Amino acid sequence: MTSPDSAPSVDLGPAAALSCRECGHRVPLGPVFACEECFGPLEIAYDFSAYDTEELRKRIEAGPANIWRYAPLLPVPADVADKPNINPGWTKLVQADNLARELGVTGGLYVKDDSGNPTHSFKDRVVAQALEAARAFGFTTLSCSSTGNLAGAVGAAAARAGLRSCVFIPHDLEQGKVVMAAVYGGELVGIEGNYDDVNRFCSELIGDPAGEGWGFVNVNLRPYYAEGSKTLAYEICEQLGWRLPDQLVVPIASGSQLTKIDKGLKELIELGLVEDRPYKIFGAQAEGCSPVSVAYKAGHDVVRPQKPDTIAKSLAIGNPADGPYVLDIARRTGGAVEDVNDEQIVDAIKLLARTEGIFAETAGGVTVGVTRKLIENGLLDPSLTTVVLNTGDGLKTLDAVASDTGLTATIRPSLDSFREAGLGS
Amino acid sequence: MTSPDSAPSVDLGPAAALSCRECGHRVPLGPVFACEECFGPLEIAYDFSAYDTEELRKRIEAGPANIWRYAPLLPVPADVADKPNINPGWTKLVQADNLARELGVTGGLYVKDDSGNPTHSFKDRVVAQALEAARAFGFTTLSCSSTGNLAGAVGAAAARAGLRSCVFIPHDLEQGKVVMAAVYGGELVGIEGNYDDVNRFCSELIGDPAGEGWGFVNVNLRPYYAEGSKTLAYEICEQLGWRLPDQLVVPIASGSQLTKIDKGLKELIELGLVEDRPYKIFGAQAEGCSPVSVAYKAGHDVVRPQKPDTIAKSLAIGNPADGPYVLDIARRTGGAVEDVNDEQIVDAIKLLARTEGIFAETAGGVTVGVTRKLIENGLLDPSLTTVVLNTGDGLKTLDAVASDTGLTATIRPSLDSFREAGLGS
Repeated sequence: MTSPDSAPSVDLGPAAALSCRECGHRVPLGPVFACEECFGPLEIAYDFSAYDTEELRKRIEAGPANIWRYAPLLPVPADVADKPNINPGWTKLVQADNLARELGVTGGLYVKDDSGNPTHSFKDRVVAQALEAARAFGFTTLSCSSTGNLAGAVGAAAARAGLRSCVFIPHDLEQGKVVMAAVYGGELVGIEGNYDDVNRFCSELIGDPAGEGWGFVNVNLRPYYAEGSKTLAYEICEQLGWRLPDQLVVPIASGSQLTKIDKGLKELIELGLVEDRPYKIFGAQAEGCSPVSVAYKAGHDVVRPQKPDTIAKSLAIGNPADGPYVLDIARRTGGAVEDVNDEQIVDAIKLLARTEGIFAETAGGVTVGVTRKLIENGLLDPSLTTVVLNTGDGLKTLDAVASDTGLTATIRPSLDSFREAGLGS
Repeated sequence: MTSPDSAPSVDLGPAAALSCRECGHRVPLGPVFACEECFGPLEIAYDFSAYDTEELRKRIEAGPANIWRYAPLLPVPADVADKPNINPGWTKLVQADNLARELGVTGGLYVKDDSGNPTHSFKDRVVAQALEAARAFGFTTLSCSSTGNLAGAVGAAAARAGLRSCVFIPHDLEQGKVVMAAVYGGELVGIEGNYDDVNRFCSELIGDPAGEGWGFVNVNLRPYYAEGSKTLAYEICEQLGWRLPDQLVVPIASGSQLTKIDKGLKELIELGLVEDRPYKIFGAQAEGCSPVSVAYKAGHDVVRPQKPDTIAKSLAIGNPADGPYVLDIARRTGGAVEDVNDEQIVDAIKLLARTEGIFAETAGGVTVGVTRKLIENGLLDPSLTTVVLNTGDGLKTLDAVASDTGLTATIRPSLDSFREAGLGS
């Protein structure tokens, strides 16, 4: 018997093994997500030992304008950029001077705008990773449970890769979301039940012969999938000129994105690609689904599940798997976790659009709103460099702003009517 | 009196003057769009004489991942990348192997996917140019008439630049489009009338003191605005490895985009950045608004206006200003102009989504549908390298595909129900 590390059966680049986040137990790379010893979450362990810092930096800078520029740091084969995938990433880091003025930030404020991804949310990053893992493991169907952004990302990625896709959603989703998920031509199955029922069913399917050959991006491919969020950290630092920001404001759904951004920043420090100095990570939730924020404020280490009721549906996970890790990171780095209510979310969406021309999804309203609140509370230092994440696109959550966003005036097509309405220069 | 060329009053980089497309009369750079001699359209005349080919290529390749990498070839100041703008472009050129197989293209098929722009349409390219011209001329309000994509692009660009915006639309637009245009916080004025009434009113406003200081991106800033489409040609060639494609399929609304793509390709040849060899440009229209296609097929040089009736609303210009130029280019290059009906547009949207994971606006359905038709007709050679433009995002025209895009099946959350529906692997 060979050791798990010495003979990985698949080529996923620098990925050496899966390692349990809780007990450190290592197993070979495979489509598993929970530790056989302690049921803790498995994550990718890498072998970066061969890298020379400056060679690596040059290799990255010469790479494609998408996440595959970081292939040496991801669980993907070295030739990943040549395979059909949706190639997300290298989205804009917008220098948000107008927003900074409104919020009183003097140390530099940036919005990492992931609405520029192929299906207009950060989910393209994680799905692109899961797709490579699915290929490596010989899966022929890409699947997931979803209520929105993820469904589109999986449908699009599978289409490009020539894999079958089968996405499970609650049967009573709004028609617009169904269309966005269905247009890529994969199978889209409505489950009579709520999102929890959909998830439970998917877990059942993984253990059944009917699910053989199926890669569920956020279940049995989760360790690979989750690594996609590291690329947000890489891009932010490279776009800042290989520099760590002082403060980051990151939305919390399952909490996975925030923990992987922290992992990515630590890797850049260890690899010598950025200077080793402190950074603070702040978590952002909607008040209507704020289990991590509530636990943070109460000083708890565990997260008590909530029943979500918020317009920020892409963040509405009442029982976030990575909640305890998020609490640890926020406390360890000197950050915090905060939440805003629906009205504040809408105000923040409009603020970002009005100041920077970026139309964010409700999740972007959450991070911008929380940034404002953290400054008011004195928890976020406006004199430090701050990066706020927008992880999705306002076109997908038009309803959130529709009720009070409309015409300034209605006039007849005449100069008289124009002047009567007080519209002149 | 100095000659118009010797003393441009504004710094717009290599732009030397405005030149009439019909009679060649030159005037200094300014916010004018029609020749004072013959009423022909004015366009930008450049001075590229100082460029060394290889130095220029290196300068472009070292530039930012947006249209400003081509600043040396555009009417913008050299430091344009440092000013607040929405920085569109450098969108993906997707190697569409799956679509190629379906269409029988063997020479290489690519989709230039402009849904990746900041407000998810190619309009960001032209508005970003107009914004720079507006700044150069000291305008304080950015304006336009629009029924959709342009309104959002103007609103977003003005917000980023800190200019006032005032956009005019027909008062009875669908609520979704109104929200997309209004969210950026500028003034959005509904005009009681149709799009023609809106346009007429805008022309009146330009001549009135009430419109002083206003830059209408597609009227008095049109010569600058239109140049933005050249960047599509530049990017396509650079992304192909500084190579001309053999064939391009471009949508026709006013026809400006197609004529400027031709201009961009010719500039690259003249500058030595690509090899001088033939290329064919094909124009694509919707049957319900096909004045150029009708004229092309009839062998006419003039275009007879139509009353538009098509789901491809972003292409629904019944009296396209650049129609005659488009006819000339299609004939001169050995291309053609073709049209597809609404059903074919929807089929093509789905085909592109299913094969490449790209969810296109109706305009993208038009170009993909026309590509298919041109191959069937023998007018487009499937053995040659072909680039098809997708100029917008499917999220903005969900209604076009909503009626027959939905759930594959609805099941109970049980394996039995799953198997009964025939969904197993």
